[in-house]
Amino acid sequence: MELTHIEHIGIAVKSIEEQLPYYEGVLGLKCYNIETVEDQKVKTAFFKIGQTKIELLEPTSEESTIAKFIEKRGEGIHHIAFATENLNETLQEIEAKGVRLIDKQPRAGAEGLNIAFLHPKSTGSVLTELCEHP
Amino acid sequence: MELTHIEHIGIAVKSIEEQLPYYEGVLGLKCYNIETVEDQKVKTAFFKIGQTKIELLEPTSEESTIAKFIEKRGEGIHHIAFATENLNETLQEIEAKGVRLIDKQPRAGAEGLNIAFLHPKSTGSVLTELCEHP
Repeated sequence: MELTHIEHIGIAVKSIEEQLPYYEGVLGLKCYNIETVEDQKVKTAFFKIGQTKIELLEPTSEESTIAKFIEKRGEGIHHIAFATENLNETLQEIEAKGVRLIDKQPRAGAEGLNIAFLHPKSTGSVLTELCEHP
Repeated sequence: MELTHIEHIGIAVKSIEEQLPYYEGVLGLKCYNIETVEDQKVKTAFFKIGQTKIELLEPTSEESTIAKFIEKRGEGIHHIAFATENLNETLQEIEAKGVRLIDKQPRAGAEGLNIAFLHPKSTGSVLTELCEHP
């Protein structure tokens, strides 16, 4: 396995609309996609900077894990996502090394990626996602 | 101003030594530098992945802002740092847009960079650093 780059950084926000003036107007990044991921109960907004995307995550329901995160910790950085070229193989290797997985199998994420989350108990409390372009 | 890429992601940890098996052994990243930043009361460890570095931050004193962060929120992602080619100009532009700055002037950071932090009140609670290679 090889992790090639940081695919994105996920940031929990109460309102994408309220954050656009900062990301676009202040930082000068361009929001190129807004997409709702129904099964995650989240609306996402994407900005590209170098190899990496910033992904704003706005809950669309109070049951969303993002809503719970914001309730507990406030808005802010939620997770970090590494890109890999073979997600199945990477998950197997990482699990064999004793890491606890949230997703044992890849599932569909935003922007057509295959994704899986590692458990923060195994990652020094950093919620960590792995992504693969199919 | 233009932000070119994510220079690094800062992660607060109680012990760099305890985290090395995860970053090196599990994720396969190589720690290429460990450095103490005396005025920040912090020991830092760096890993490169694509354009971006992961910077682990271990407090060397209970008065370190990292120690206080860990006490309040636990270990985890602490800040995100964007690279810019002209830090002075970028700070002036960003301040003119109404953003509150922690550092009005660039100061010396780890790895020989010039750095400045924006105030989380202006950034949707994301502690944000700007970096320039001198």
